[in-house]
Amino acid sequence: MTAQRMRVVIVGGGFAGLWAARALATAKVEIVLIDRGNHHLFQPLLYQVATAGLSAPDIAAPLRHILRKQNNVEVRMATVTGIDAASKRIVLDDGATLDFDVLLLASGATHAYFGNDHWATHAPGLKSLDDALDLRRKLLLAFERAEAATDPAERAAWLSFAIVGGGPTGVELAGTLAEIARHTLKDEFHNINPASARVRLVEAGPRVLAAFPEDLSAKAKRQLEKLGVEISLGTPVKDISADGYILGDTFMPAKTVVWAAGVAASPLGAMLGVPLDRVGRVQVQPDLSVPGHSDIFVAGDLAALLQANGRPVPGVAPAAKQMGRYVTQVLRARLAGRAPPPAFAYKDYGNLATIGRMAAVVDLGKLKVSGLLAWWFWLVMHVFFLIGFRNRLVVLLNWWWAYWSYQRAARIILGASREPAEARDGE
Amino acid sequence: MTAQRMRVVIVGGGFAGLWAARALATAKVEIVLIDRGNHHLFQPLLYQVATAGLSAPDIAAPLRHILRKQNNVEVRMATVTGIDAASKRIVLDDGATLDFDVLLLASGATHAYFGNDHWATHAPGLKSLDDALDLRRKLLLAFERAEAATDPAERAAWLSFAIVGGGPTGVELAGTLAEIARHTLKDEFHNINPASARVRLVEAGPRVLAAFPEDLSAKAKRQLEKLGVEISLGTPVKDISADGYILGDTFMPAKTVVWAAGVAASPLGAMLGVPLDRVGRVQVQPDLSVPGHSDIFVAGDLAALLQANGRPVPGVAPAAKQMGRYVTQVLRARLAGRAPPPAFAYKDYGNLATIGRMAAVVDLGKLKVSGLLAWWFWLVMHVFFLIGFRNRLVVLLNWWWAYWSYQRAARIILGASREPAEARDGE
Repeated sequence: MTAQRMRVVIVGGGFAGLWAARALATAKVEIVLIDRGNHHLFQPLLYQVATAGLSAPDIAAPLRHILRKQNNVEVRMATVTGIDAASKRIVLDDGATLDFDVLLLASGATHAYFGNDHWATHAPGLKSLDDALDLRRKLLLAFERAEAATDPAERAAWLSFAIVGGGPTGVELAGTLAEIARHTLKDEFHNINPASARVRLVEAGPRVLAAFPEDLSAKAKRQLEKLGVEISLGTPVKDISADGYILGDTFMPAKTVVWAAGVAASPLGAMLGVPLDRVGRVQVQPDLSVPGHSDIFVAGDLAALLQANGRPVPGVAPAAKQMGRYVTQVLRARLAGRAPPPAFAYKDYGNLATIGRMAAVVDLGKLKVSGLLAWWFWLVMHVFFLIGFRNRLVVLLNWWWAYWSYQRAARIILGASREPAEARDGE
Repeated sequence: MTAQRMRVVIVGGGFAGLWAARALATAKVEIVLIDRGNHHLFQPLLYQVATAGLSAPDIAAPLRHILRKQNNVEVRMATVTGIDAASKRIVLDDGATLDFDVLLLASGATHAYFGNDHWATHAPGLKSLDDALDLRRKLLLAFERAEAATDPAERAAWLSFAIVGGGPTGVELAGTLAEIARHTLKDEFHNINPASARVRLVEAGPRVLAAFPEDLSAKAKRQLEKLGVEISLGTPVKDISADGYILGDTFMPAKTVVWAAGVAASPLGAMLGVPLDRVGRVQVQPDLSVPGHSDIFVAGDLAALLQANGRPVPGVAPAAKQMGRYVTQVLRARLAGRAPPPAFAYKDYGNLATIGRMAAVVDLGKLKVSGLLAWWFWLVMHVFFLIGFRNRLVVLLNWWWAYWSYQRAARIILGASREPAEARDGE
């Protein structure tokens, strides 16, 4: 046997962690990839699971299966409960400890309520497959409760939906929910007209899709309104309860509120004992290492870094992949005794967001597209980037079917028999 | 308006209830179909969801969607909490009451532990989609726990699986689980060899698939053994705990035990106040009505009825469909003032069970087939009977993919982040 190989521990099997592990396929290192779940999740399509367009396994693949042919990686399903940066050791929830030569922390982000954690019960967020299935159940059950309600005010409250947050997730959810109410559920109810449902997108800032140029934001707003979404701009939500929310000073009855407003970094960042930014992200060095720990790197949504243009690297999948791969370049240079690569630079290929049936906005810098053409572009890009041959076929089949039938394949309420009583708020 | 129409309340959207509702499409009646869930479930493929071959929405369709074009039916998602047979009224869990002229009770069966209800925690059964997703998580997590285990005895216990009950569900689960261990998970683990997993099928009676002729039972046993399943016949399970089960007088370590042994009728039968059989089924009249209540019918797994040959009508999907349709013939005769149809007679088209990869047994009376040909027959029949055009395509695509790749599309652990601590027995 040769000398012991460098052990690289990667925490998180998202875009940053998985792309790093794959980029090290031929490196003479020993990799341990740790994730709380057993799968890589194609997060850009998570809202489709929540809105019953796709099944959970359509947008996920087991990490073990993706990496089965890569001999230098061991996949471990576990939660990290402690990081000792000084002695280079992590602790797992099953009590095991793991020494590392290099640590890549890529545990991503979660949704945050900014000091209003009691809102979580009434306004769930969307970050994991479990979140998506919970949200799907909540959205579909609202129409069932409306159908069963006898009091007109109660019925109206069950048919009122609010999405808080006008970013890509909020826009996608609002547009799809409007389509479900107007088309998918048509003719299926006896006591209610699902098309009378009100879907309101609430954004505290001055426009939706703030990361896009102003003209595309305006187009997205018009497309949403055409789909039947009511949009409220410039007024923050002040409180959320089981029966509605307070917008400015007005109580708005709504039994279903969805949180798409805030993200906070994974709590693992705080275990490093280094400075964090306002939302808990680790302020990394230009080579993505942690100040004072040249063997600990952070990539993806957990990393805070400014670009040369002064703007932060955005929390999007391409940035996470680029960061994950960049860290492997640093490691390869070290292993080979070469000079390190130049500082990480985010390459921005563009920005796209879908709005609803055949509507999207695409910003490729010089080229800006909206409407049907943008929607086709969005579809092709998302199917292309989806991991796994079989998933692409199933997703295409589902979309083809949804396109022609206006139906949504996964309109099955799961987990209603398992739901703890205290979670059934507002009933 | 004409005179008030007869109101038919159907409880249960399974094969009996849904087929009855559809057979009344052109009848001048007012139908209310009540189900706890929002979907019809194609139960014969439920084990495929549990073993990660299919997604939950692949084998289910929303009842509202199936019945959207039938104007005389109202679908209600609710649980029946009371039946007043004398005043012809049912009570729902949301407090509503519903008067009926005719009641069809088709709420099916659940799994039963025959006085050993504490086994439920350690040996879950398989009746609903939620059961299937729970079981999928349990099966996939067992391999993850084995991978993380450091004690060899503990590792072996995590790699030991027992299926209690040698009927069709037990045989399907055991065969598929053996295939997963030997093929699907190949090369994916670091510390364990999944192929070393032991899958034991435990049947208290003298043979597996007791409803089939003896020679097909023997063939099924041989096919299972060829797939690597160990079979124990003639000895009952005496106790089940978090760490294993007692077979005869021997403690068998096994962290994963699945219950496929006993069914009991839905508890709604007991609300009628009429005689029930040993497992809680309603002993119906030859016209499927309840003794003393000519306007209350029972169909499907909840009904106990002897055939002319002295054997009970089996608890299978074709019998449930036939019973559901028969009740509508009785009703149509009453509405038309015609003589009632002759007593219900179950038409047995045959019996089929799948065993695992390309193995099945088919009993069509004169024709008995086993092996690959039987498997193809099984596949065609199941895809043919699956509700919904889109589901058939997706299921076929999944099977085609599974056949060539040995992979299973839905190998995603869902709900691990939602699992209450007390349910994580044996960890």
